Amino acid sequence: MKIIAMIPARMGSKRIPKKNIRLLAGKPLLQYAIENAVNSGAFDEVWVNSESEVIGELAKCCGVGFHKRPAELSGERATNNDFTREFLECHECDYLVMLNPTSPLIFPETVADFVSFVRDGKYDTVLSVVEEYAECFFCGKPINFSVDGKVNSQDLVPVVKVVWALTAWKRETFLRYASLGRCATFSGELGFFPIPFDQAVDIDTEAQWKLAEGILLARKMDNGGAEYWGEK
Amino acid sequence: MKIIAMIPARMGSKRIPKKNIRLLAGKPLLQYAIENAVNSGAFDEVWVNSESEVIGELAKCCGVGFHKRPAELSGERATNNDFTREFLECHECDYLVMLNPTSPLIFPETVADFVSFVRDGKYDTVLSVVEEYAECFFCGKPINFSVDGKVNSQDLVPVVKVVWALTAWKRETFLRYASLGRCATFSGELGFFPIPFDQAVDIDTEAQWKLAEGILLARKMDNGGAEYWGEK
Repeated sequence: MKIIAMIPARMGSKRIPKKNIRLLAGKPLLQYAIENAVNSGAFDEVWVNSESEVIGELAKCCGVGFHKRPAELSGERATNNDFTREFLECHECDYLVMLNPTSPLIFPETVADFVSFVRDGKYDTVLSVVEEYAECFFCGKPINFSVDGKVNSQDLVPVVKVVWALTAWKRETFLRYASLGRCATFSGELGFFPIPFDQAVDIDTEAQWKLAEGILLARKMDNGGAEYWGEK
Repeated sequence: MKIIAMIPARMGSKRIPKKNIRLLAGKPLLQYAIENAVNSGAFDEVWVNSESEVIGELAKCCGVGFHKRPAELSGERATNNDFTREFLECHECDYLVMLNPTSPLIFPETVADFVSFVRDGKYDTVLSVVEEYAECFFCGKPINFSVDGKVNSQDLVPVVKVVWALTAWKRETFLRYASLGRCATFSGELGFFPIPFDQAVDIDTEAQWKLAEGILLARKMDNGGAEYWGEK
């Protein structure tokens, strides 16, 4: 079974300009996704999908492939459906795994576990999710609990939140849906792969950029011993 | 209208031992909630509710009141319903706001805004929530989107997640529900107050403790200018 990685990375990001080549804790944001893909050891090929030659340059520096997407798919309006279809039409594989560069905090081990789950072949689409063990409402109505009693959060049935850090598609199913004009993003049988919330942080704003830098910093920090008030 | 703050803080925390007096970035965890309550300028009184004399000592050091809960409400099994009822029976007020010490990252300004919302008096219970603008599933079924089309996350109707950083109860309604043996935690008309996700982090595990330290660190960091790959 051939499983390849695709990392979509435009130069023209809007909320955080040029975020893919901006340095996060000293390293371009995009490089995290590239290294996570490579270090997972789970892929037959790793590709960066971009319209930008500069980003292509960075991909090559990191030793992975550069798929230059056509100009008409490089704008704000290009959907995931569109550029993934174009990519899949150019690259043979059984499954494609998309790593989102805006989720740099994931661990290579998590990527490897995700790919093992995909490799089982039970699903056409596999979504990375965070399980929310918390009382949730939708349009004012409780989803996973009753207001008639309070239960411990860990005993709730979790609401499952899609995080787009990792997404896998069976090539054949995706292209069939796309050719029928159907939404291929959620094509066929859906599987869910839970990942820890601190690996799922998605960088879309300056506040999240700062948060991610804090988490990276905290990971490097010495754990030390716990200290307590009033004790020396 | 009299609005008072209660900060529940046991000594016998389980997953993180003695977490309330453990130093987080140099300051006891409990002190964050105390300072957030005091610095919000929004409360007529601020109380720490605990069975522990040591925690009482810390409360007094910080210049706030110490409500010593009875021994029978100090165990693992004591519910929020139970100790809040006992507290409310001892303290007159219109609304009680509970600040959770395991959410130290909230800003005093957010606490002040929350109390203004409570003061409007439209609700019996006000819950702090994080709005999740993401595709969510419950028991495998989509909650807030359709798999027939992908829309931008910011255009979704959010799923609303209760975070327990801040909770407000109208005293009268709470005590009426409690005296009828009903669940007072969700008593009467429910209101929702959204807070930013990075202020909502709940510390329940060592991993979350470390995450919170990272965020506190990042907040202190100089923003500096953005730097980019290939530019000097």
